[in-house]
Amino acid sequence: MTTSNARHAADPTAADPDGPDAAEQQRRETELVERVLAAFADTPDPRLREVLASLITHLHGFIRDVRLTEAEWSAAVGFLTATGHITTDKRQEFILLSDVLGASMQTVAVNSPARGTATEATVFGPFFVDGAPLIAAGGDIAQGAKGIPCHVSGRVIDTAGAPIAGARLEVWEADADGFYDVQYAEGPTTGRAHLFSAADGSYDFWAVQPSSYPIPADGPVGALLGATGRHPYRPAHLHFMVTAPGYRTLVTHIFVPGSEYLDSDAVFGVKDSLVVPFTDHEPGEAFGRVLDQPWSSATFEIVLAPETRGEQP
Amino acid sequence: MTTSNARHAADPTAADPDGPDAAEQQRRETELVERVLAAFADTPDPRLREVLASLITHLHGFIRDVRLTEAEWSAAVGFLTATGHITTDKRQEFILLSDVLGASMQTVAVNSPARGTATEATVFGPFFVDGAPLIAAGGDIAQGAKGIPCHVSGRVIDTAGAPIAGARLEVWEADADGFYDVQYAEGPTTGRAHLFSAADGSYDFWAVQPSSYPIPADGPVGALLGATGRHPYRPAHLHFMVTAPGYRTLVTHIFVPGSEYLDSDAVFGVKDSLVVPFTDHEPGEAFGRVLDQPWSSATFEIVLAPETRGEQP
Repeated sequence: MTTSNARHAADPTAADPDGPDAAEQQRRETELVERVLAAFADTPDPRLREVLASLITHLHGFIRDVRLTEAEWSAAVGFLTATGHITTDKRQEFILLSDVLGASMQTVAVNSPARGTATEATVFGPFFVDGAPLIAAGGDIAQGAKGIPCHVSGRVIDTAGAPIAGARLEVWEADADGFYDVQYAEGPTTGRAHLFSAADGSYDFWAVQPSSYPIPADGPVGALLGATGRHPYRPAHLHFMVTAPGYRTLVTHIFVPGSEYLDSDAVFGVKDSLVVPFTDHEPGEAFGRVLDQPWSSATFEIVLAPETRGEQP
Repeated sequence: MTTSNARHAADPTAADPDGPDAAEQQRRETELVERVLAAFADTPDPRLREVLASLITHLHGFIRDVRLTEAEWSAAVGFLTATGHITTDKRQEFILLSDVLGASMQTVAVNSPARGTATEATVFGPFFVDGAPLIAAGGDIAQGAKGIPCHVSGRVIDTAGAPIAGARLEVWEADADGFYDVQYAEGPTTGRAHLFSAADGSYDFWAVQPSSYPIPADGPVGALLGATGRHPYRPAHLHFMVTAPGYRTLVTHIFVPGSEYLDSDAVFGVKDSLVVPFTDHEPGEAFGRVLDQPWSSATFEIVLAPETRGEQP
């Protein structure tokens, strides 16, 4: 028994020969971790073995570090159960949970390694739809989505600055009320399209000024945000997914400078480099349109990293 | 950019000025963890704040350590979703998951700190039933449960060796087919009871020889066991929960020496100190019964730790 070490100096039971035995306790906890790791050591798939070994090490580390109580363990089981029960084909509460813990963004980070000037990636989100309509250069993705017109333009280039022609840009966004088209019970495809960069790498399209909106907050994840003093909002943004042969696929957003929640994105998707210039304009003629209301414009230079063998796509 | 450090020496892209930038990548990942921790820093409840900070640190550490791919992240979301969907009032797959990862046992460990000679704790399991019948000393908990008779006896003492009179012992076990009474669609209460220790701390009761059995393996947790080359069995055991005023509640099992799976309990509940003497006997008269079949006996000395202020019950 070790009743004389520093840790026990302030322990009221330190003088008790039946008091806590820190060395034996440490031995038992460590031995358990080793026993669990050994049980998974014969996992046939080497990658599954590696992932589980790290998971087990961190899971046990967490329980030991915080001295998780049995009531807290039960609360965690209850939280996960509620998260599972609210999850349906239409609502994925586990992804929300991953999002608000920053785990989704960290997964993006490790799969989009920094590479020179390449544009930073951010979270994909649940609102992408495959098969959005093709628009020509200068076309309008809004298609009736509510909001003030916003012209977005830039170039797609490589990390050496050379233009990338024919890059495919998928773009999608919420309307001025903060809803994506797929969040309405019925209605047309609005606020999403795809287009291709020109021979000089340039692209441009009309959209609506991006808006902030909350993630679903009426479930367990919303309760977690509430208990931790956090709001459920994402700052105003517009999604891009850019693909071109020989380049790493880029999934990212652009954010509006000064947008509310820019410093407190509920899902940690903001990168300083993705807050790009937006300019407000008076009504008038611009980019082939006559605008009878105020409008805005944004510019976004997209730098694609080369695809590397063995890297995640 | 750092293209000349040791890590990059073997990297085929190291000569590429647009190649991976390990220092910048590290900065981005670390900054994200700090941003997430900062978002939770205003959590009003200090304990929730502490638990979440550790959870976030370990979760991000896991993702970064294994370089979790987006496909693996999706698989994890799918696994948790399936675990949530199979969980009902009758079946708790998240507890099974905690069990097979050793998390349940580690939680028991941190809440039952080593204390002198006090008996070690192990997992509570899902089969305890409140309100099991009272039996007198020497009574039978089997009540018709299938199995060869087994007499269990010992003393309840404190860490100084003094007897504890009137300790309440809840005991429960599976039958020879590996099922607890509650696992049968209908039927009487069998294989469980409670009794009290005598003035000299002694207790004894009849039961059936404990049997090994599998945890439910037809769900996601069973699939995990399958993928990792593990079986779902628990070695033969009999559950105890022992309470006495002024002492820490002990939740534990006794295990049968030589029982199959003793070295590979699916839920990591085995402790060497809980593998107690079991003896096989020929038919005959013993402990007030005339046995016309072989029977066994086990002895188990139960040492309760003193209850300490501020400690988990």
